Amino acid sequence: MLAIASYFGMTAVAQNTAPGQAVPQIAPTITPEEFEAGKKIYFERCAGCHGTLRAGATGPELSPGKTIKMGTERLNDILQYGMPGGMPAWGEDNILTAKEIDIVARYIQQPPPQPPELSLAQIKESWKVYVPVADRPLKVQHKRDWENYFGVILRDEGRVGIIDGDTKELVGNIKTGYAVHILRSSKSGRYFYVVGRDGRISLIDLWTKEPTLVAEVKPCIDARSVDSSKYEGKKPEMNFSDKLAIIGCYWPPHYAIVDGLTLEPKKLVRTAGYTYDTNEYLPEVRVASIVASHYDPLWVVSLKESGYVQLVDYSDTDNLKTTNIEAERFLHDGGWDSTKRYFLVAANMRNTISVIDVKEKKFVANIETGKKPHPGRGANWIDPEFGPVWATTHIGEGLMSLIGTDPKRHPKQAWKVVRQIPLQTRAGGLFIKTHEKSPWVWTDAPLNAESDKAQTICVISKKKAAIEKCFQATDRGRIVHFEYNKAGDEVWVSVWDKQGEMQVYDDKTMTLKTTIRGDWLVTPTGKFNVFNTRDDVY
Amino acid sequence: MLAIASYFGMTAVAQNTAPGQAVPQIAPTITPEEFEAGKKIYFERCAGCHGTLRAGATGPELSPGKTIKMGTERLNDILQYGMPGGMPAWGEDNILTAKEIDIVARYIQQPPPQPPELSLAQIKESWKVYVPVADRPLKVQHKRDWENYFGVILRDEGRVGIIDGDTKELVGNIKTGYAVHILRSSKSGRYFYVVGRDGRISLIDLWTKEPTLVAEVKPCIDARSVDSSKYEGKKPEMNFSDKLAIIGCYWPPHYAIVDGLTLEPKKLVRTAGYTYDTNEYLPEVRVASIVASHYDPLWVVSLKESGYVQLVDYSDTDNLKTTNIEAERFLHDGGWDSTKRYFLVAANMRNTISVIDVKEKKFVANIETGKKPHPGRGANWIDPEFGPVWATTHIGEGLMSLIGTDPKRHPKQAWKVVRQIPLQTRAGGLFIKTHEKSPWVWTDAPLNAESDKAQTICVISKKKAAIEKCFQATDRGRIVHFEYNKAGDEVWVSVWDKQGEMQVYDDKTMTLKTTIRGDWLVTPTGKFNVFNTRDDVY
Repeated sequence: MLAIASYFGMTAVAQNTAPGQAVPQIAPTITPEEFEAGKKIYFERCAGCHGTLRAGATGPELSPGKTIKMGTERLNDILQYGMPGGMPAWGEDNILTAKEIDIVARYIQQPPPQPPELSLAQIKESWKVYVPVADRPLKVQHKRDWENYFGVILRDEGRVGIIDGDTKELVGNIKTGYAVHILRSSKSGRYFYVVGRDGRISLIDLWTKEPTLVAEVKPCIDARSVDSSKYEGKKPEMNFSDKLAIIGCYWPPHYAIVDGLTLEPKKLVRTAGYTYDTNEYLPEVRVASIVASHYDPLWVVSLKESGYVQLVDYSDTDNLKTTNIEAERFLHDGGWDSTKRYFLVAANMRNTISVIDVKEKKFVANIETGKKPHPGRGANWIDPEFGPVWATTHIGEGLMSLIGTDPKRHPKQAWKVVRQIPLQTRAGGLFIKTHEKSPWVWTDAPLNAESDKAQTICVISKKKAAIEKCFQATDRGRIVHFEYNKAGDEVWVSVWDKQGEMQVYDDKTMTLKTTIRGDWLVTPTGKFNVFNTRDDVY
Repeated sequence: MLAIASYFGMTAVAQNTAPGQAVPQIAPTITPEEFEAGKKIYFERCAGCHGTLRAGATGPELSPGKTIKMGTERLNDILQYGMPGGMPAWGEDNILTAKEIDIVARYIQQPPPQPPELSLAQIKESWKVYVPVADRPLKVQHKRDWENYFGVILRDEGRVGIIDGDTKELVGNIKTGYAVHILRSSKSGRYFYVVGRDGRISLIDLWTKEPTLVAEVKPCIDARSVDSSKYEGKKPEMNFSDKLAIIGCYWPPHYAIVDGLTLEPKKLVRTAGYTYDTNEYLPEVRVASIVASHYDPLWVVSLKESGYVQLVDYSDTDNLKTTNIEAERFLHDGGWDSTKRYFLVAANMRNTISVIDVKEKKFVANIETGKKPHPGRGANWIDPEFGPVWATTHIGEGLMSLIGTDPKRHPKQAWKVVRQIPLQTRAGGLFIKTHEKSPWVWTDAPLNAESDKAQTICVISKKKAAIEKCFQATDRGRIVHFEYNKAGDEVWVSVWDKQGEMQVYDDKTMTLKTTIRGDWLVTPTGKFNVFNTRDDVY
């Protein structure tokens, strides 16, 4: 009970500003201007992996106790040249200048400043309805097949391009939050919810003549996830189609429940708490992936640092029911199995996929799959030998792991790695994609340090359970993220570059069908087809 | 969005130790020794009402921004002479010396030190099993009726006296935590759980020849509440009799779930979060009252500052389900209605009783009852006109308020104040007690500033719905807290004094039957009869 003893003993070192406190280590000097500059760079470039309070997650802890020991020179080197395991070479890659690197190196030796809290009233100040619900059309105002629209993240622009999947024309180019992370469709599919890393949520109406930004809100200063209420119960009061949305924040550590049609903020729920295993308190527990159940009024919320998966019953938000499932620490992204009963989520720093039974509201299994699994939402298909499987690739190694997902008819394979398929790209895999109509599984490796690998697509044959074809798809930028069209016969992929492009492949032949280009296609990354996003087709 | 702007603007004032930070106000000097002394006195005397982080609750906020403006001299006066509304006269009452008051006055102008966190591992260090379960007797080892034992809090001793309710003999005198708040019985009644304000939990076995301390744990540095698992489902795995216990902490803001027979700590759940109404983040949300349902595997946990009542389903703690019910802020104590379906809890700084439907897991009503209701667990009886009622007295006025609790057969009266009975003691009421066999309702007023009022018992007639009799029961100390014996024909009351006593009244005649005295009866306060505590008879 050392902590208690010292709180009431003479040796107490208060964590705030108790008088007589000894400063054990000396941080290098930094001016207030440099401190602010360092804080901004840290937030934009470092906080995602190392945490806003620098307690570590995907990247290691960066407390002053640790960084001061390392010293400015060593920190400068790491920032310049990167580190094996994922730390980018910020200097060598010409992202940060030598001066900026020096500022960050000294900034991270200072105590982390406490980021601000956000109350509901403050969040409401950021809330804007550009088109009230009453002024929105009751019918679709155009002849296009909006269910085949693609929302494309233009990452460094803070914009989303809306492309007609049939004609490949740009039909909308909408200013959103900074460095958008994902788009999600409402249950009807009419609306796109867009989440910027700066916490700004944009609501886009696809029924208007041109896609229209109808509302905005900013419930976070750092965010990654959003989803809508997808449960359509039989009773009218249990039909939640398009009614609510949830935004998962990195900071503050909370999620916000908002009105689905206006984004009006309704309720905040704190996510900071104890780790599921050691029960240690963490002031920073970030909301990673969120998915919405199709069969119950539930959101499945992954709490990164604490390792809990929280099921949030949105049917009565005044008497909010949650189920707090002990899963694994450092939860990141995940998706449904083919039945949409089980949620599989990567605890990527634990090399594990956690499986949650959302119907029974309980933990099923933790499965070691390989180094840093990063499934996106994963991919589901029928393996010829093992039946239904869900698969992930890995950031840390060129490996696709297939997990059996059918405890009823394939109980021996259920929640076990049934196959591991080595990939020629060796490491840096971010996304995997298939379609029930397709014989193939598409994979990328944009984080591979070798640019030719990062430009390579590997396609796996479901039948052979082996690579069918790997090919370098571009000689500039990086290949990232796949999405099928509504019909399931085209695969869209981004060339992630300052001036990027979208490649559209014929799925059956794996041949390039067309390339979408344009000045507006700046750093395209993720893309989301309305039909497939709404119905969780993956 | 001022907070966000300033986090990334040059005007930012970081809450920790960012360089270049301006100190807006000057606190008076304080030596490290004085700071430690002030911290200790504040914790023991002030934190209960003003909060460990001084954000206020039952007492006002004491931030440096506020206290520095008031100044040392004014703060000294308030500490010396008290304030109307509940602030004690620490100096005049000879509890603090002039020197101690001066230290506290300067201490509360400093920034509050961050109190320590407690991890499960740290809590386990405090855990002691004095008698393993295997070494405990399988049968009662004495001839006494242990179901009629009373556990009496000897407040300033940090002890609990166990009295045989039949013979009035002291059968055990057990060292416990500091300034014990309450005792609770396990479902079988065999065990007493004792919670000290210092967070120490003591488990007492009543089946041994003499009551025996069998285990201890300290999951908090400040605590008020404990209860056991009382649900006995039909399936063996759903029989939770004596299996688990929950401890509600003031600091850290969490509750701990422990093994019911050994107190082994199992799980911590953070309670800090957003207020139910304005959704503002509070780092300090304390656990006030806890009750255990008899009909479901649920604990009902009142979260003071945020105003949520949380229902905790303990049937599967690995996949912990909670229902977070928006009630009212500054929740304090409460108890069951006569059916044990509804939980009524005081939001005393809002002059309100909140009603929760534990069966349906939802909010029912907020009812204004008077100035600072303080029901303890309240009292249930059948009003001749309005049917089943639950009643509370008030700290802030001499008033008993009766609330209708029968929505089925008395829907017009349900969840409304149906009667208000003025009490001669005028203010300072803490406890109320009755028994279904009794025609009377007993009330005290120990916090009344006038000592003769604080020494007075007022008994209300259920039939007349009016005072039957008020009488000064002692000429020293204060009268506090009632408890019935198992048979329901005796009322026990404490004379709360340095050398105190227990008065035992014949309930029917309201005449003093006997007085229990002894050197060991130092500052007796609450007392708990096993039978009535186990079965929630009140």
